[in-house]
Amino acid sequence: MKRGSLGLKQPDGMMDLLPGQLAALEAVQRKALEVMQAWTYRRVRTPGLEFRDCVEPGADQDDKLYKFFDRDGNILALRPEFTTPIARMAASCCREETPPLRFCYAGPVYRYGAERQREFYQAGAELVGAESHLADAEVLALAVEVMKALEARGFHLSLGHNGILSGFMQEFGLKGELRRELEDGIARKDIVKLEELIRARGLPPEAAKLLTALPTLTGREEVLDALDEWGWMPPVRRAAETLRTIYSYLGEFGAQKDVTLDLGILQGFSYYTGAVFEGYLPGVGAPVLDGGRYDGLYGDFGFPQPATGFALHLGLITEQLEEIDIAGADFLVYGQSPLKVIKRCRELRRAGKKVEMALSFLAEDKAKELAAGRGIGMLERV
Amino acid sequence: MKRGSLGLKQPDGMMDLLPGQLAALEAVQRKALEVMQAWTYRRVRTPGLEFRDCVEPGADQDDKLYKFFDRDGNILALRPEFTTPIARMAASCCREETPPLRFCYAGPVYRYGAERQREFYQAGAELVGAESHLADAEVLALAVEVMKALEARGFHLSLGHNGILSGFMQEFGLKGELRRELEDGIARKDIVKLEELIRARGLPPEAAKLLTALPTLTGREEVLDALDEWGWMPPVRRAAETLRTIYSYLGEFGAQKDVTLDLGILQGFSYYTGAVFEGYLPGVGAPVLDGGRYDGLYGDFGFPQPATGFALHLGLITEQLEEIDIAGADFLVYGQSPLKVIKRCRELRRAGKKVEMALSFLAEDKAKELAAGRGIGMLERV
Repeated sequence: MKRGSLGLKQPDGMMDLLPGQLAALEAVQRKALEVMQAWTYRRVRTPGLEFRDCVEPGADQDDKLYKFFDRDGNILALRPEFTTPIARMAASCCREETPPLRFCYAGPVYRYGAERQREFYQAGAELVGAESHLADAEVLALAVEVMKALEARGFHLSLGHNGILSGFMQEFGLKGELRRELEDGIARKDIVKLEELIRARGLPPEAAKLLTALPTLTGREEVLDALDEWGWMPPVRRAAETLRTIYSYLGEFGAQKDVTLDLGILQGFSYYTGAVFEGYLPGVGAPVLDGGRYDGLYGDFGFPQPATGFALHLGLITEQLEEIDIAGADFLVYGQSPLKVIKRCRELRRAGKKVEMALSFLAEDKAKELAAGRGIGMLERV
Repeated sequence: MKRGSLGLKQPDGMMDLLPGQLAALEAVQRKALEVMQAWTYRRVRTPGLEFRDCVEPGADQDDKLYKFFDRDGNILALRPEFTTPIARMAASCCREETPPLRFCYAGPVYRYGAERQREFYQAGAELVGAESHLADAEVLALAVEVMKALEARGFHLSLGHNGILSGFMQEFGLKGELRRELEDGIARKDIVKLEELIRARGLPPEAAKLLTALPTLTGREEVLDALDEWGWMPPVRRAAETLRTIYSYLGEFGAQKDVTLDLGILQGFSYYTGAVFEGYLPGVGAPVLDGGRYDGLYGDFGFPQPATGFALHLGLITEQLEEIDIAGADFLVYGQSPLKVIKRCRELRRAGKKVEMALSFLAEDKAKELAAGRGIGMLERV
């Protein structure tokens, strides 16, 4: 017996979704897609497998890929996210369309990692071919609108800009391992670690000041005023202006109260180039959504386009909601004659009822027990 | 530039689904699941990856698996179908539930093969823990009901029984390569090939007669009368009785006219043990659904249960239907002031309208062009 040795196990990080869990996940996904589609994002789907070279955004991310050789010696990978495959798709199918292009999607992605799960359900939106601040604001406002539609209590978004830190790092010639360490300290808001690094590497005072300030710069517009001091670095000045404009647009969208500026946020994917954001729910240790501007990715596919978008982590969001009780059938039909049972089930189904058919004869007490166990309202013996 | 070498290609057999194609597939999937759920099948989802040893039904099928080593040296496989993973799941989570268990599912499966596609979208139903003929009839009638709900014009189902041929093969000691050749001849209804094999291997006349008769035994109940001649083989007699009972039940389900008996059909998966069936659409070269009884599979997972079910090939069915036109937005809102544009979009969206927001200022003729190209009914300048 071949299957015996592994018994009932799934591979690490894989999970079955039972009826109540799947119904909850599907409800979240459906609502998210509904809002995105109402905002004219068109749903697409890319395949589960891509060439490794397509989805590998960098050495770091590659480490998380599920990859393998196919029969022709190509390296394939399970998609780790949808943004890059959608860029590949759009570069191949949608060159003739008038920009901007708006896409949405939902489906599983696969990543090795320390987490309990390695198959993640995502839904997201991509806005391609628009570089205006209004485009950034639309995507952020859409993320807020989706979270509202999901009735995700206590959610909030943090908005930052990749250009601040990358402009600063370039100005001060910080790179390699040191840069990664500094970024890690900022992302964790670990001032002690940052101060140690500054001391050990002898960084100049003006660099030290910005590095230790960034993790604390969270709040409303006033946070941007604090950046004036570093306005002599053009990328920092431009980032501050961008965030100011986007934030004012969010006011008009009615989304400002759900979005806080946080100049210390950093995004894991290397393709982000501008405004970036993350969404949180109370009690959830990781962002439940993340996104931002990525103006370089489409060029990799020979179709240079500015772009911005976000992904929702449906699993994390669903875990915060109630499991959905699957409604029991309206009727359980049983009896000694299969023909009579079939006939009655057919009548009831034609009348729009949800009907369970007993497949063998049941004594009355057994039928009652079954109906009660399944939450079936009506019992009918024919 | 890493992505350059592969440009815009997907791996062989992988396909993007653009908005109209995906909407059509989703509509088919949704309708199929709706009918299954109304018949009290509960939707579940198993992960995309399984241990190879779980989903490998036999050497032949294994050849089609997408498989690879994970980081711990286990061999994993992308699921090639859902029936086996659902058996693994049910054996682990659902032992305490009162049978029968009814499950339905939808999602992609992966198989190498000569076909244009290697990622297939399936939806299906499994009925576990019921061995009665009524259970076989329920699953068949459900398949018919789903095809009706899909308005799949000209569909029909063929119903056969694996026990006839396997009982016969055992009786005459036919196995190995010869058995496979004979099965292939029957499945292709290739009488010439069958006669050659019979001659070359010197098979006895009573074997020859059944072998050449099976491919021709298609039609209504009278087909079963023809089996009387071979009724001295118990598996053949039992199979005939089973099919007679199931077929009579189909009459009561109102499904008999859509189902033809075809004693020559054979199923690709080795796990089928009883009544088996296939569904066809005019002009489609392969079955658009297949299913049958598989009473041995659950025992492999230490949870012996009779079971029957079927899978629909959503892609093949969707290809026969019209692509769905994605409705254009109700409004395109444009203007010189982003704040005014946002405000108006928000008002219209609150009123339930589908609204595209112009992300940069458009001249009137450009706005008209964009709206026309996208099929947007109303143009509003603010």
